[in-house]
Amino acid sequence: MTRILYGLCGRDAGRPFSPHVWKTMMAMAHKGLDYRLEPVPFTAVPEIEGGATRTVPYLADGAERIVDSFAIAAYLDQAYPDKPSLFAGAEGPARLVESWSQTVLHPAIARMALLDIHGLLAEKDQAYFRESRERAFGRTLEEVAAEGEGERTAFAGRLEPLRRTLGYQPFIGGQTPLFADYIVFGALQWLRIAGGPVPLEAGDSVALWFERCLDLHDGLGRSVPAA
Amino acid sequence: MTRILYGLCGRDAGRPFSPHVWKTMMAMAHKGLDYRLEPVPFTAVPEIEGGATRTVPYLADGAERIVDSFAIAAYLDQAYPDKPSLFAGAEGPARLVESWSQTVLHPAIARMALLDIHGLLAEKDQAYFRESRERAFGRTLEEVAAEGEGERTAFAGRLEPLRRTLGYQPFIGGQTPLFADYIVFGALQWLRIAGGPVPLEAGDSVALWFERCLDLHDGLGRSVPAA
Repeated sequence: MTRILYGLCGRDAGRPFSPHVWKTMMAMAHKGLDYRLEPVPFTAVPEIEGGATRTVPYLADGAERIVDSFAIAAYLDQAYPDKPSLFAGAEGPARLVESWSQTVLHPAIARMALLDIHGLLAEKDQAYFRESRERAFGRTLEEVAAEGEGERTAFAGRLEPLRRTLGYQPFIGGQTPLFADYIVFGALQWLRIAGGPVPLEAGDSVALWFERCLDLHDGLGRSVPAA
Repeated sequence: MTRILYGLCGRDAGRPFSPHVWKTMMAMAHKGLDYRLEPVPFTAVPEIEGGATRTVPYLADGAERIVDSFAIAAYLDQAYPDKPSLFAGAEGPARLVESWSQTVLHPAIARMALLDIHGLLAEKDQAYFRESRERAFGRTLEEVAAEGEGERTAFAGRLEPLRRTLGYQPFIGGQTPLFADYIVFGALQWLRIAGGPVPLEAGDSVALWFERCLDLHDGLGRSVPAA
C-alpha cells in the first residue's frame, strides 16, 4: 500500500513551506508511517484525483481520502491506534491550540512573509496568489507586507502563552510532543522556510522549543534549510 | 472523609470570585465529589493549616494536600480515575489553554475589575490588596483601572481563538467539557461576579458557550449572581 500526501509546493518542489503540510509531515513521522509526498502548486490543487479536493494537505491512504491537517491527524490516531498517539485521547483542547495559532500567529506570519512566499512560487501561481490574497486582504500584497516590520517586533510577545507553558514542560504535549506541538511548529517552520529567521532571541524558551521540534524524527524539520 | 477546599473570599463569604477557586469548584462538581468550601480572606491565607500554603485553592482530601488549581485537577484525575475525566488523558495542551488565559485574558480582566475586586474585600484585605497589586503593577489601582474601558472594547477580540474553536465543537473539551473549559470559564466568571457583565454581544458564540458553562452541574456557576 502506498500512501500519498498531496502538499503545496512552490517553484522548487523540494522546499515545502505550507504550515499545514508541515503539520501533516510531522504527524506522519510521529506515527512512523511511510508515504510519498506529492508536491502540488497552488493552481494544480483542483486537479488532484480529478477534482477530489479544493485544499491540501490531502492524504490518500489505501481506500481512505482525508483532507485538512487536523482531520488527517484525527484519522491517523483512529486508523493506527497502536502507533504513538497524536492527541493522547483529547482532541478538543488541541483545537484551541490550532485556533490560537490560526488567529494570532498566522496573520502575523502572513504579513512578515507574504512577499517571500510570492517569490517562491512559479509564475502562474504568483498570479493566482496575488489575486486571491489581495481580494482577501482588500489591499495589495505590498501594502500588507508593509506591516511586516511591526509584526516582527511584536512576534515574541504574541508567543507568551507558549513561553509560559514551556515553564512547566518541554513540549505543548507535556514531556513528549503531540499534534498540538506540530500545529505551532508548522507556523514557525512556514516562517523559517519562506521568510527567513524567526524573530526570537536565541535563549528564548520558545526558540529552544522550536530547535527541539526541528530535531524531532531524525531532524525532519531541518531537512529543508531556512530561507 | 470530609474534603475541604480552601478558597479566597471577600467580605461576603457567599460570593467566591477567584477564577482559580471557580476552576476547582467546577472540577470537583465534574468529578461528582463532595467537599466543604472554606472561605479564606487574602490576609488569612498564611494561617491555613498552620502555614501550609501561601496560595489558594488548597485542597485537603483525607491525608492528601494539594495546592494550585491545575495541580488539584491533575490530582483528581489520578486519585479518582473512575469518575469523569478532567483531562481525558492529555494534560499538556490544557497547560497552553491555561497559559493563554493567564497571559491574555487575566491581565485584561484585572484592568476591568480591579477596583470592583477591591470593593468586595474587607478593610484589612483591601489594604493588603492595594499594597501588593500596586507594587506588582508599579502604579496605583486607579491608574491601572483607567485602562479598563479600553480593555472592555478589546475583550471580544481577545477571545477569537475560543470563538474559532467553538465553530468546531460546543466545548473546548470537544462534545463535552473538560478542565480546559473550566480554566477559561473561571476567568469569565471572575469578571461576571466581581466586575459585572462580560462585554460580549448576546449572540456571540463565546457568550453562548459561557451560558452553557453556567448551566453545567445543576447551574453551579449561576449559584452566585452576577455583580
